[in-house]
Amino acid sequence: MRQITIYDIAKEAKVSVATVSRVLNGTAPVKASTRAKIEALIQKYQFQPNAMARSLLSKETGIIGVIVPDLTNPFFPEVFAGAEQEAQESGHTFLLCNTMGSYAKESEYLNIMQEKRVDGIVFIGGRINLKDCEPELVQEVVEHANKIPLVLVNGNLKNTELTRVVTDEYTGTLLAMRHLIELGHTQIGFIGGESHMTTTSIKLRAFRKALRDEGIPVREEWILPDSFSVDSGRQMMQKLLDMKEQPTAVCCVNDFTAIGAIKTAVENGLKVPDDISIVGFDDIPLAHHVIPELTTVSQQANELGRMAIKVLRQMMNKGKTKKLTALEPQLVVRQSTARL
Amino acid sequence: MRQITIYDIAKEAKVSVATVSRVLNGTAPVKASTRAKIEALIQKYQFQPNAMARSLLSKETGIIGVIVPDLTNPFFPEVFAGAEQEAQESGHTFLLCNTMGSYAKESEYLNIMQEKRVDGIVFIGGRINLKDCEPELVQEVVEHANKIPLVLVNGNLKNTELTRVVTDEYTGTLLAMRHLIELGHTQIGFIGGESHMTTTSIKLRAFRKALRDEGIPVREEWILPDSFSVDSGRQMMQKLLDMKEQPTAVCCVNDFTAIGAIKTAVENGLKVPDDISIVGFDDIPLAHHVIPELTTVSQQANELGRMAIKVLRQMMNKGKTKKLTALEPQLVVRQSTARL
Repeated sequence: MRQITIYDIAKEAKVSVATVSRVLNGTAPVKASTRAKIEALIQKYQFQPNAMARSLLSKETGIIGVIVPDLTNPFFPEVFAGAEQEAQESGHTFLLCNTMGSYAKESEYLNIMQEKRVDGIVFIGGRINLKDCEPELVQEVVEHANKIPLVLVNGNLKNTELTRVVTDEYTGTLLAMRHLIELGHTQIGFIGGESHMTTTSIKLRAFRKALRDEGIPVREEWILPDSFSVDSGRQMMQKLLDMKEQPTAVCCVNDFTAIGAIKTAVENGLKVPDDISIVGFDDIPLAHHVIPELTTVSQQANELGRMAIKVLRQMMNKGKTKKLTALEPQLVVRQSTARL
Repeated sequence: MRQITIYDIAKEAKVSVATVSRVLNGTAPVKASTRAKIEALIQKYQFQPNAMARSLLSKETGIIGVIVPDLTNPFFPEVFAGAEQEAQESGHTFLLCNTMGSYAKESEYLNIMQEKRVDGIVFIGGRINLKDCEPELVQEVVEHANKIPLVLVNGNLKNTELTRVVTDEYTGTLLAMRHLIELGHTQIGFIGGESHMTTTSIKLRAFRKALRDEGIPVREEWILPDSFSVDSGRQMMQKLLDMKEQPTAVCCVNDFTAIGAIKTAVENGLKVPDDISIVGFDDIPLAHHVIPELTTVSQQANELGRMAIKVLRQMMNKGKTKKLTALEPQLVVRQSTARL
């Protein structure tokens, strides 16, 4: 029979590893009924963590720290939901830290996580999406990663060997663009994203590449980066529509800007997709509930979160870990794109 | 001149109170450049925390814990954003804990917050929205609240004197219903919400009251609680539309179910609001971007988050605190409702 572990006890008792650890180590109070249940299982399986395991246990907090840039963009709660589902099994709990796009807050939260002795860190957005990240900010992450298992999600820090889980945004944008081109569009604009962020530059690179591959000239005036919000999508779409010549299709940096672009197109009396095709990126949960339903590229947000935890768990268990895990993006054709 | 406090130092240095505290107490490493900046300010103002302040400082972590039920519902990230904005000033940082609706996870996170010595706790959703919460679950929250300042947001626990910040959901639903009735609707259905939760029963009470006030009979078969998701809104709307007789207007438990209800109405060939009026609740950020724009009741989510922190700060400073702070909901008339 396989050796019983603390994870088995936690699973059967339907509590977290941290709770079992509390009972074993007496480090903090546990509800009487829960304690009784756990003690019964310890008895049943004659579970005896050896000295090394015990020391390991008391070092482990069962907590994973997650740093995200903006929870009001539903992509991030979706990634987090995947992480939570995956961690359910191993009994880990989460400290979620929202940075509101502030690098100072990222530093703050990295320090807090270090102090609070999390077992691992998942880092999404912020400085890891910068085209040029200050060396001091890079160095800080590397130093934390030297002490605590740390996974970057959909980002990178130059000249480091940090472990990463990403969706291939370049390929994703190619999929979206080829879809538009196959539908007969050659007049295509690009809306949204901040120029200093890699997610924008990667997508723009693919945007240009897709046009070049078909010998379609790039119309620079139709490339309108700005930000990632719905309002930004609305404003940039209005800019496009106010131009003398307009594209017949628009590739948006994410679903939020696409929802804004559709809204403004409709307000300007256009029909989507009859008069203009619009494609998003992310496949947020609402993408298939809006009217018209959004054609978009799925980043597999949920799977991305799950994968981050799988990789982090390998690192926490000192197992072999691939430095880069890339998920394949998927084109999801719905109602916001049509043949020209 | 007013005595300089740690908050002033933190504000001027643009760092959190926790970081200043780290420099003062030497409890954890701080980036060299940040440390230099803080030390310069301490020098400049001759800031000398006295022994008591110092002991207080080292007890304070500058961290507020927030328990939420479901971050994939944009209402909760919006409340949290308000809390973050409000806490910016006082330099507090957050540990956000998502419970996925599990009461066991709530217990887990309450324990973690206690262990990690947060300065205060904001509790939203979950057990505090139950019509009948088990005494053991109530008692647990009371015990934590005896040790750490704790604020309930939009909920209550019977027979306790916990501090609460709420939006008046009863009045909010009355506003929505009176709006529909003023538009000439008398055939009104109700969609969504879980029956065992107070948010549902409070709204249903107001729904019945509004009809009764006008002498309009309640059609029980048109009351379809289920859950809070978009999919639930779609399914319950389909149920309504499959009935022999159908309402001309639908009051939804939240914006998610309203978005689902609109989607299904449109798929069934109905025009919203020409053929059927639909009103939501919450005023999530997307409510004014969807097509048609959602008529809804604003819970002032952002303000709710801000208020929770204001009240919590009063408690942390041992100031006088009102046991109940109620925000007025606001009817927001947009495009999904029309005259019969």
